[in-house]
Amino acid sequence: MTGPVLAIDVGGTKLAAAVIDPDGEFLARGAVSTPDSSDPDKVTGALRELARGLVDRAPARMLVGLGIGSAGPVDPAAGTVSPVNIPAWRDFPLVETLREVLPGRPAVLAGDGQCMALGEYWRGDRSAGAMLGIVVSTGVGGGLVMGGRVHLGPTGNAGHIGHIVVDIHGDPCACGGRGCVETMASGPAIARWAAEQGRYTGDARALAKAAHRGDRMAQRAFDRAAVALAAGIVSTAALVDLDEVVVGGGVAGAGEALFAPLRDAVEDLAGLGFIRRVRVRPSPLGADAGLLGAAALALAAAGRGDPT
Amino acid sequence: MTGPVLAIDVGGTKLAAAVIDPDGEFLARGAVSTPDSSDPDKVTGALRELARGLVDRAPARMLVGLGIGSAGPVDPAAGTVSPVNIPAWRDFPLVETLREVLPGRPAVLAGDGQCMALGEYWRGDRSAGAMLGIVVSTGVGGGLVMGGRVHLGPTGNAGHIGHIVVDIHGDPCACGGRGCVETMASGPAIARWAAEQGRYTGDARALAKAAHRGDRMAQRAFDRAAVALAAGIVSTAALVDLDEVVVGGGVAGAGEALFAPLRDAVEDLAGLGFIRRVRVRPSPLGADAGLLGAAALALAAAGRGDPT
Repeated sequence: MTGPVLAIDVGGTKLAAAVIDPDGEFLARGAVSTPDSSDPDKVTGALRELARGLVDRAPARMLVGLGIGSAGPVDPAAGTVSPVNIPAWRDFPLVETLREVLPGRPAVLAGDGQCMALGEYWRGDRSAGAMLGIVVSTGVGGGLVMGGRVHLGPTGNAGHIGHIVVDIHGDPCACGGRGCVETMASGPAIARWAAEQGRYTGDARALAKAAHRGDRMAQRAFDRAAVALAAGIVSTAALVDLDEVVVGGGVAGAGEALFAPLRDAVEDLAGLGFIRRVRVRPSPLGADAGLLGAAALALAAAGRGDPT
Repeated sequence: MTGPVLAIDVGGTKLAAAVIDPDGEFLARGAVSTPDSSDPDKVTGALRELARGLVDRAPARMLVGLGIGSAGPVDPAAGTVSPVNIPAWRDFPLVETLREVLPGRPAVLAGDGQCMALGEYWRGDRSAGAMLGIVVSTGVGGGLVMGGRVHLGPTGNAGHIGHIVVDIHGDPCACGGRGCVETMASGPAIARWAAEQGRYTGDARALAKAAHRGDRMAQRAFDRAAVALAAGIVSTAALVDLDEVVVGGGVAGAGEALFAPLRDAVEDLAGLGFIRRVRVRPSPLGADAGLLGAAALALAAAGRGDPT
């Protein structure tokens, strides 16, 4: 069956949705902030309203499938999600909830980082044999595209680069572990570290502006995040042998405040030649990559084969 | 073509070779210590002599292929190796050198950790959808078997768990990087740390005996190695979504002195459910796993299909 699909991207900061056609064109789109609430129904209500708004505007009978990317962990087999940064949802039946909006169509769930990486591959540069996509936002997510396919893993959770351990002496992480990339490199972690230095109260976006103005302490907050991300990149390259890394998400909007120290830290931490050759660059697609990857999965599930 | 193959395992401590039949049976075998020499020809001479000894004893005309596992990095396309722990060999033409011993047969080169993981999968438990094999010895190597196949990566170097960064504030590594698993968990790293505490001069094997006798400082040396290995395991599980980890190599011979703190450290560092479910156990096949994996690759190359 051919036709556009409904793509959903669930993050700790933003809920986004779009109607996307088989060529990757956006026919309609919408987004709202993720309600900061301990009430699961508030988050669910906001998402349902967003999705319904698009389906009502689109020719719903023409939508051939539903693709959902969500902050992890996810359980694609059960159709549930337990995003670290959306505490209101634990084993939340996301697929079932969204099926009500678009009944009778195939629905696919994957991690938001996996969708971002797949979107970058599908609509971006396809030369990489092995690519890591990283989303640095409220959390740090990621996905691996190897041999042209997104690597999901036995439970569907592959690509969680935010929970790679880069500092065995590091701080406890919201995941229950310790020393994870996310404890240093997420937007809130960057802002928290800067606040602990005693002078800053802004978020990562405000800090990025301060860093660009030459504020040394603000820059140091990004330097620290960059080292954690670099260690995650080097570790991933050591483990799966990477060609390319694409970094997106709100924090990547800091630009050179993040990417300059990131390149330096990869240079510092990487030793072996096959690791040092990895290319690290900002996401060309930006916030659209996750929706495009979710659309790619939905198109594949709707019988369009593998769109990548 | 059916028949036995010649399998070679090149490590920083030991050079091993065996004639192995398509059922995984050892028909002949041999091993020598890796010459500790800056002269490439000494290492090469020892390996060639070992391989020739086996070929002379085996019915050479019946050997259908040559499988080589080597400490990394390796360059399977070029047939060369540059093992971190064999400094005499840099871009050393290992395949060409061994082809002289068994001319006219297909020859395959892979990483020693990849061969170990494949060997454990081929001749061991095949229930894991994603398995990490780790070899803790002079260095720390590894390999990933996912969906029944060894993951080689674009340059053939996937699985280098020894060079995952687990301590961004850590020591320089022989690889040129910093804070790698290998700086804390290899046999020499364990012995070096113990020596720095001022009382020990023995190697990791002697320290293991001391730990089993209840020596607290010796046990602490293994505790430290275990934390580094655990961080590597947790990171790998976060990234590729693992079912199982098998740990072999000489240092794994320390038994519970290593495995008890290793289980504790995985428990401590792992947060998310899909990471905590990973099973960690000692290698059932021990030192034979690498040779068996090299044999599996050679059998596949000789037209026996994929023996796994």
